[in-house]
Amino acid sequence: MKATIKDVARLSGVSISTVSRVMNNPELVVPRKRQRVLEAIRELHYSPNALARGLIHKRTGTLGVLIPDISNLFYPAVLRGMEDAAHQSDYNLIICNTDASAGRRNSILKVLYEKQIDGVIWTSEPLPRDSYEMFETLDFPVVLAATHSPEFEIPSVKVDDEQAAYDATVYLIGRGHTRIGMISGPPNDPISGYPRIQGFLRALRDYQIESDEAVCVEFGKYHFEDSYEAMKRLHGKFPEMTAVFASSDERALAAISYLHENQIRVPDDISVIGFDDTRMAGMSFPRLTTVAQPLYEIGFSAVDKLLKVINGEPIEELRTCVPHQIIERNSVIDCTQQAVIK
Amino acid sequence: MKATIKDVARLSGVSISTVSRVMNNPELVVPRKRQRVLEAIRELHYSPNALARGLIHKRTGTLGVLIPDISNLFYPAVLRGMEDAAHQSDYNLIICNTDASAGRRNSILKVLYEKQIDGVIWTSEPLPRDSYEMFETLDFPVVLAATHSPEFEIPSVKVDDEQAAYDATVYLIGRGHTRIGMISGPPNDPISGYPRIQGFLRALRDYQIESDEAVCVEFGKYHFEDSYEAMKRLHGKFPEMTAVFASSDERALAAISYLHENQIRVPDDISVIGFDDTRMAGMSFPRLTTVAQPLYEIGFSAVDKLLKVINGEPIEELRTCVPHQIIERNSVIDCTQQAVIK
Repeated sequence: MKATIKDVARLSGVSISTVSRVMNNPELVVPRKRQRVLEAIRELHYSPNALARGLIHKRTGTLGVLIPDISNLFYPAVLRGMEDAAHQSDYNLIICNTDASAGRRNSILKVLYEKQIDGVIWTSEPLPRDSYEMFETLDFPVVLAATHSPEFEIPSVKVDDEQAAYDATVYLIGRGHTRIGMISGPPNDPISGYPRIQGFLRALRDYQIESDEAVCVEFGKYHFEDSYEAMKRLHGKFPEMTAVFASSDERALAAISYLHENQIRVPDDISVIGFDDTRMAGMSFPRLTTVAQPLYEIGFSAVDKLLKVINGEPIEELRTCVPHQIIERNSVIDCTQQAVIK
Repeated sequence: MKATIKDVARLSGVSISTVSRVMNNPELVVPRKRQRVLEAIRELHYSPNALARGLIHKRTGTLGVLIPDISNLFYPAVLRGMEDAAHQSDYNLIICNTDASAGRRNSILKVLYEKQIDGVIWTSEPLPRDSYEMFETLDFPVVLAATHSPEFEIPSVKVDDEQAAYDATVYLIGRGHTRIGMISGPPNDPISGYPRIQGFLRALRDYQIESDEAVCVEFGKYHFEDSYEAMKRLHGKFPEMTAVFASSDERALAAISYLHENQIRVPDDISVIGFDDTRMAGMSFPRLTTVAQPLYEIGFSAVDKLLKVINGEPIEELRTCVPHQIIERNSVIDCTQQAVIK
């Protein structure tokens, strides 16, 4: 049984309000009494009760984090950034997997509401209208991480997907590639689909590279096996390509697996560039050249921003765009080098 | 401002105890009154307060999960299992990174204690005496996941590391390999070090394979770069080896990277078997043959066991040993095939 403030008062022979004063305004209590109270607190392992404090101050020091599925290797670095930002303000994170399912999401939000968490980080999924309305109704402060909402005025932290895809494609063009394929997320995916396809096509147009979207773009859902099949289809209809832009590292690894398993060497025959810079990117063979999102920073900044909202502090900008960068490893070489090898 | 039970009583024109009865024993309230109360609850978005309930029932429905570092790719599947087990009992998880640092661990435990979490899952690190004593003092129920405590009587869920390492080695021997090296965790690591080395050496002895531990075992800490260097040292002193047992998938991928980057083909020149069966194992080239730990099940069972302890239900066994199995992919071939290629 945990000690209560009553137990401390009894053991030290003072009133409850004196104990409370020792904890909140110790300078108002004479040293001798203060000493007795502190000894009793230590002896009883008394700790002021965060639940009771939550009821009084309407703060629990707990944030909810909603992510589609923690088994996806995109999240570990993002979550680590979130936890470090929370930890330095003595906050904790309750992490919940939504499986992108409305049913599971709603049951999670109900429980989080009951626990009176102080706010929510919504991660890497588009925010549907019903969830937005639920946050309004429940009066939850929300920040979006690795996603943003064009329609609702909600703070967010993410990279510029269209520009990052553009830069990845221009990087391949700069290495002499003109026959470039893309493995994308579904075209209606507002993160790893639509904007990244737009960036890819804009780069091809800007450099006067003729291309037929129906031939040079294939779609895979996030998972490895889907993207492996997408690479198979892409290679079937566009066998002359010399480079592939994959809109996630997992898709890039799937593309490399397909190519290697069919005796097509990466990068000697086909170069591959990924997107994300998850830890896997440095562990594959060949090591993956990729567009890095600052995953840790996205997580850290999102929590930092949410704490500002909770504390009523001003935030500098509603939709923060964090910089991406190309990380050069070994999966892309100059097209002319490939031609020589061929 | 969130609505309270008083607000509901006022709006529906009944007493507080009637509102409470509608929520807990609705059959005791006449339909007309019940209807009015339910309408008021809906109108006010009233939700019974989990904090207040926590103060009364001494339950918060929240568990703490301590892991060394969520960026390690071993955890996503384990955490997913934990969250699914928690979710089905309407529990939530607060996930905290300890960095295996006593200071950070203690500050986390203090906060979790204040939040009156109902119990703790301690993951994949040895449990030091001071933490054990802190759990006793704080009266926290604890279950260990992917680790166990030989000295303290604490429930745990893990594989048999010694036997799993034995089986991995016997698998290589069964494919005709007799010159086998090992990339291990540090020898004092009670999970991926000591027991796995013991299992490896026992297999060599049982099959009368002469070996010098100083030559055929090298150590890398968990991280990729350390293990890459370990593989370099191992290959330098044991160049005639035909197979490597790596005591984690990350170590196996590091070994493969080193070998490939030095024009030694896997598995054509050297076979490699890993340990864990993280998601990466199916994404590498070649796809990794590995000893699978049931990662999801370890997480799920650990939370399930903790909830039993919290609810005062009997648990079947203190130290649960979950089965491992060899997953055959493409990184190991018969030694004779390698010889032919050579």
